[in-house]
Amino acid sequence: MTVSSPLVRAIGAPPIPAARAWAARYRGQAGPAIDLTQAVPGYPPHPDLLAKLAEAAGTRAGASYGDIFGDEALRAALAGDLSRRYGAAFSAEQVSITAGCNLAFGMAMTAIAEPGAAVMLPAPWYFNHEMALRMQGVGVVPLPCRAEVGFVPDVEEAARLITPAVRAIVLVTPNNPTGAVYSPEVIAAFAKLCRARGLWLVLDETYRDFLPGEAAPHSLFSDPDWGEYVVHLYSFSKAYCVPGHRVGAIACGGALREQLAKVLDTMQICPPRAAQTALTWAVEGLRDWREGNKAIMAGRAAAFARVMAGVNDWQVDALGGYFAYLRLPEGAPDAMAAAEILASERGLMGLPGPFFGPGQERHIRLAFANAEEAAIALVPERLAGGLGGALESGD
Amino acid sequence: MTVSSPLVRAIGAPPIPAARAWAARYRGQAGPAIDLTQAVPGYPPHPDLLAKLAEAAGTRAGASYGDIFGDEALRAALAGDLSRRYGAAFSAEQVSITAGCNLAFGMAMTAIAEPGAAVMLPAPWYFNHEMALRMQGVGVVPLPCRAEVGFVPDVEEAARLITPAVRAIVLVTPNNPTGAVYSPEVIAAFAKLCRARGLWLVLDETYRDFLPGEAAPHSLFSDPDWGEYVVHLYSFSKAYCVPGHRVGAIACGGALREQLAKVLDTMQICPPRAAQTALTWAVEGLRDWREGNKAIMAGRAAAFARVMAGVNDWQVDALGGYFAYLRLPEGAPDAMAAAEILASERGLMGLPGPFFGPGQERHIRLAFANAEEAAIALVPERLAGGLGGALESGD
Repeated sequence: MTVSSPLVRAIGAPPIPAARAWAARYRGQAGPAIDLTQAVPGYPPHPDLLAKLAEAAGTRAGASYGDIFGDEALRAALAGDLSRRYGAAFSAEQVSITAGCNLAFGMAMTAIAEPGAAVMLPAPWYFNHEMALRMQGVGVVPLPCRAEVGFVPDVEEAARLITPAVRAIVLVTPNNPTGAVYSPEVIAAFAKLCRARGLWLVLDETYRDFLPGEAAPHSLFSDPDWGEYVVHLYSFSKAYCVPGHRVGAIACGGALREQLAKVLDTMQICPPRAAQTALTWAVEGLRDWREGNKAIMAGRAAAFARVMAGVNDWQVDALGGYFAYLRLPEGAPDAMAAAEILASERGLMGLPGPFFGPGQERHIRLAFANAEEAAIALVPERLAGGLGGALESGD
Repeated sequence: MTVSSPLVRAIGAPPIPAARAWAARYRGQAGPAIDLTQAVPGYPPHPDLLAKLAEAAGTRAGASYGDIFGDEALRAALAGDLSRRYGAAFSAEQVSITAGCNLAFGMAMTAIAEPGAAVMLPAPWYFNHEMALRMQGVGVVPLPCRAEVGFVPDVEEAARLITPAVRAIVLVTPNNPTGAVYSPEVIAAFAKLCRARGLWLVLDETYRDFLPGEAAPHSLFSDPDWGEYVVHLYSFSKAYCVPGHRVGAIACGGALREQLAKVLDTMQICPPRAAQTALTWAVEGLRDWREGNKAIMAGRAAAFARVMAGVNDWQVDALGGYFAYLRLPEGAPDAMAAAEILASERGLMGLPGPFFGPGQERHIRLAFANAEEAAIALVPERLAGGLGGALESGD
């Protein structure tokens, strides 16, 4: 009998389909289902972007091979957006476009960490990050984050936990799954640690467009040498509402990019062309629209905090970007059972903490940004009622 | 100083940009440049497909997340096409859609072979296959192919070369780079070997739509247990002229697909949506058009063979699908230098044998299918003239 990789066999099934299977058993008894599992923009793409996507997809150029690093026009446009957002000078030569941000992470890890090496992930982590490392034979060194400090990782603890095998520390901010937003000071401290210890700081800023205000999320890019130790990951999926077109990006320095080129060529050949053309327009063309969405997201976060303030037994341990990370009531069953009950009996679909790593048995992630404020208002009543009782009376 | 993976650093730069750099020095002295490097369909996509691509890309559904395995409609359509082509019964549940066939190969290898394992590749090989394995820490066991037998691999030699680390044998037929078409008997012999030795037979049939005639390329799928030891890879890029949309596929059995799901979820989330919708129509909608293109390709292969019959010093060692594999004249410089001279001084761009593995110093790959017959007719005069002399007189 032919066998598959033991590394892949040791990994659990993809989490989101598992959670959706629970929801398939829901019969509507508590009202319409509220799907807060996957981070999906809860509003449609801008009609002008759809028109540009259609226009580009109808061309012969859109059907043709493109540059391994992605089209120069989109790289230049994103470099401009990065320059503006971070108050630093980016060039198109520092940007690589990828077929989605998950592939960006996987390819960056291949370029950085060989099998047998290790990468430090704050726990809880984005499950696909851990899966990407494990299936490549790269070790994961967990950096435990604590509810008491809003799940912000501690740089001194990170320094203590670094092993000789560690090649990189990955920070996701605003965080997935917790929603925690790391301060510029925390990010700078991690950058200093990484530089001192010869590690890459991999910053996944997929949700950066939903940060409130205009201030730069951090000041790392003001160091002219940032490219020697910082890798920035970005996704067009959330900010532009186009996850189905699979476009992400990596910003990094020249030495790493030269190595990354081999991985890009091997894994993706080129990113999808037509979406690149349309997004080149959208970087400037939809700037005001994105600002408006940022306000909508801030409104949803505020609404979520407001409605949860009236809930005594569930605790919002972190909240920001797209996500809230809720602590289960005392006496409730563990998160796997609780998430199954909420999905199958109350029509509230979230992801249980154990999908995001060890020590998460008392937490559930809700992607509140998927839902309009009217749906968010229904969350407390879906959570209420004592999960233990529901478990016993389950039908 | 932070470092990148030593596995990636040990890999050479992507070949096609290197070859294009030679061509950038060409000044037109021998006439218009003829680019026979990358396998690019030498005709445009069908206008109805462009219209369907535009239509799908303009929808909200096209911008949304989809199934990890790809959209059910396209999986069913491809299953139907496979059933027809191979005279076997495929179901949508045996098909996974991928963001291109390169990613299909990389993900299939991750699912099959852990770091430290090995995979057997007939040499010369498709360079991205070797790169994908090396960067994942998977060993490559070369299976040398010989010009005297048209570069068809020998199954007895393969049996002798299998080491305990080998998990799979990869066959590309019609072959890249040589163009060799393996007979059903050769493919069956490899399948028998793989099954007996507990290995996967990974069949990359990217160029299968250009095989002459209606006969099935092989009969492996008539074994109801094929899914236990065969993995089939396919690309929509060549047959449908849409490489810029990045759509490929994997057909495999249920046990492997369950493992593959984890890799698909981690690396690609879902394949690009809009192109899947358009291609679902095209599988049946463009069947006649594809048949017509097959005839065009057969015409180009015949034209290439015809014009090369008048060339005495260059030898066509293999020819088929998209590619011809040419042996350099005696006394000519080695393939790297020869390909550089041809590109930079004669405007004939091909890829030198050493890009495709060891022992290829006397060969050059020409992707003849890129060029119309009028351009193919110019190949002999570009090849003529003695490369040694050109090297010395180089300007």
